[in-house]
Amino acid sequence: MTAPSTRGFPEAEYRTRTTRAQEEMAEQGLDGLLLMTEAEVTYFTGFQTLFWQSPTRPWFVFVPHAGKPVAIIPEIGAALMRQTWVDDIRTWCAPCPADDGISLLTELLAPCTKIGIMLGHETHLRMPLADWNRLMAALPGLQVTDAGPLVQGLRMVKSDAEITKLAQICAIGSATFAQVPAFAQEGTPLDAVFREFRRAALAQGADGAPYVVGAAAQGGYADVISPPDGTPLAKGDILMLDSGMVCDGYYCDFDRNWAIGRADDMAKRAYDVLWRATQAGIAAARPGTTCQALCAAMNAVIAEIQDSGGDIGRFGHGLGLQLTEQPSLAGFDATVLQENMVITLEPSVSYGDGLMMVHEENIVVTPAGGRLLTTRAAPELPII
Amino acid sequence: MTAPSTRGFPEAEYRTRTTRAQEEMAEQGLDGLLLMTEAEVTYFTGFQTLFWQSPTRPWFVFVPHAGKPVAIIPEIGAALMRQTWVDDIRTWCAPCPADDGISLLTELLAPCTKIGIMLGHETHLRMPLADWNRLMAALPGLQVTDAGPLVQGLRMVKSDAEITKLAQICAIGSATFAQVPAFAQEGTPLDAVFREFRRAALAQGADGAPYVVGAAAQGGYADVISPPDGTPLAKGDILMLDSGMVCDGYYCDFDRNWAIGRADDMAKRAYDVLWRATQAGIAAARPGTTCQALCAAMNAVIAEIQDSGGDIGRFGHGLGLQLTEQPSLAGFDATVLQENMVITLEPSVSYGDGLMMVHEENIVVTPAGGRLLTTRAAPELPII
Repeated sequence: MTAPSTRGFPEAEYRTRTTRAQEEMAEQGLDGLLLMTEAEVTYFTGFQTLFWQSPTRPWFVFVPHAGKPVAIIPEIGAALMRQTWVDDIRTWCAPCPADDGISLLTELLAPCTKIGIMLGHETHLRMPLADWNRLMAALPGLQVTDAGPLVQGLRMVKSDAEITKLAQICAIGSATFAQVPAFAQEGTPLDAVFREFRRAALAQGADGAPYVVGAAAQGGYADVISPPDGTPLAKGDILMLDSGMVCDGYYCDFDRNWAIGRADDMAKRAYDVLWRATQAGIAAARPGTTCQALCAAMNAVIAEIQDSGGDIGRFGHGLGLQLTEQPSLAGFDATVLQENMVITLEPSVSYGDGLMMVHEENIVVTPAGGRLLTTRAAPELPII
Repeated sequence: MTAPSTRGFPEAEYRTRTTRAQEEMAEQGLDGLLLMTEAEVTYFTGFQTLFWQSPTRPWFVFVPHAGKPVAIIPEIGAALMRQTWVDDIRTWCAPCPADDGISLLTELLAPCTKIGIMLGHETHLRMPLADWNRLMAALPGLQVTDAGPLVQGLRMVKSDAEITKLAQICAIGSATFAQVPAFAQEGTPLDAVFREFRRAALAQGADGAPYVVGAAAQGGYADVISPPDGTPLAKGDILMLDSGMVCDGYYCDFDRNWAIGRADDMAKRAYDVLWRATQAGIAAARPGTTCQALCAAMNAVIAEIQDSGGDIGRFGHGLGLQLTEQPSLAGFDATVLQENMVITLEPSVSYGDGLMMVHEENIVVTPAGGRLLTTRAAPELPII
């Protein structure tokens, strides 16, 4: 079991994040950032709770142009927030549909001229839209701009301390995947495979394995986001498990494929192409390369057997406090890779009659190319 | 292990849900409902995937005034959606920041005059706000009203088939809690207790135990939403575990308390008051009672030792496809209980120097009062 020796970060980590945000806010003339989603609240404060799973209560953090973040949160979270580096904690007794933090926010934001919130791609408004509209009506002079690129841009590049945590959960994930042949055999129901996989992840030291999807079917699978049913694994199945596990707030996200008993040539060929596409991605993942170019490097290998890469929409993504975060390894994403970005390489390919295969590793971008955080998948489709 | 014999529901379940929504839509003159959050998409379609954990892609379902729901979803979900009763599935290759479903939605909604979305309490806009604004700008004549009460009102009252699933996950939860004394003992680190608890839940048949929070401290705890640290359980600690486990999409949500080695009188007294407050709640949970009145019935017992009930904000809530859903057992909620609502009773009390205790059961509202889905907690604080 690989439990973390220390949880959380020293205060300096949060101070650096906040200072960097404030430098960019100054360039954009922002009085502050209003944030309300789990990853952003955690990023700037260190506040970690599973309570986000309840949709009932909104949570807010305001990062001012100078000084520490301000928390505007339900009273139920005050004790936990007081353990973070945040000093200014303003609470209300939530839920309170008549005023779920809106008057507190109105008072806080009244002196501001221009703030940023996250408006764009990969963001949600984690508060009722009617409450947002009320807040805006109460602050008619306030200018609101999109701070998505600012926050997502900061979060993309990881600190050494974050990379240590990501390496840890990737090691836990790798150790868990290594156990799969011990409990996934011909005749094992697929839902039992999922169950044992989750139990193994916990035993290896994951705080949880919230994301476990996969499939098993003759010669290959047609779908990569389904829950399992009780169908027993059969000779000739291709089994795929994809998992996001988490430890101390940081995720791994990778998958593995196995053939049960035997594999046909089409599946072996798909696996080989994906393995080599990933290898090309690892080699290309250097600072200065664009996400588009990294995607193209993998696609050049996929092109041996297919014109385009299936229905996933991209060949990888950022990884950190979220299972998936910016950037995207896709033709639309011109983000330039920087040292210490942590990303997934996730090429996919369609083959046969509606079948597909996925293959995924997690890496850190370095001047020498991608440094693997995951134990590299076997170069040939493993047969159980 | 109590794995479900059958997953999902027959098509009639979804047809009934849709027809009921359409009857209310007719009364309100709505051309349809645009839904985008996991519970609502699942409720009307049966589509179940853990892929919602990735914030990258939006998912939409439109429930028209007549006929089956229409899915407007990323292509990666098409194969899974085709397994549901939905016929009209419109997809795009997501992520696509330039047009993440917006032109498909614009085309679909163009003939509409008035639609409902969920705008109010306990709802989020699970799409980028900028995309929502673009959609509204593209449909300048469209009237959008709050369909939150319509959808939440339907979801509050469970079908017999839903209650069967809720009873199953509550039984799994009860069996898991019964095992806690076997692995939570003086000297056991709290994070190891959490880990074994999650593993036990999986072994009992839960698909997952995504929500496990709790605390352990001398004489009582001060916080009920924290992750654990590695502090060993010590004689005199009060240990609390609160868990949302899930099976086939339906949640239990309840907690248990234990004393390690010994309990002081204050903790025993708090436990006794909460146990009896819950008993009063069970007796009062009949159709026709308001949530306010049910809350007051519990509070009348709490009043023996405290004026108000701590910082949780309410004494229970709805339960189903979400860990917490409407209604709230609180002074602000005038919802009238109906037969077959499934709710948590969750009184809490503050005592001593900043300590608190919580106590929670899950029940179905019946004419004879609350029918327990959970195995009732012991009437006296159990000592391990």
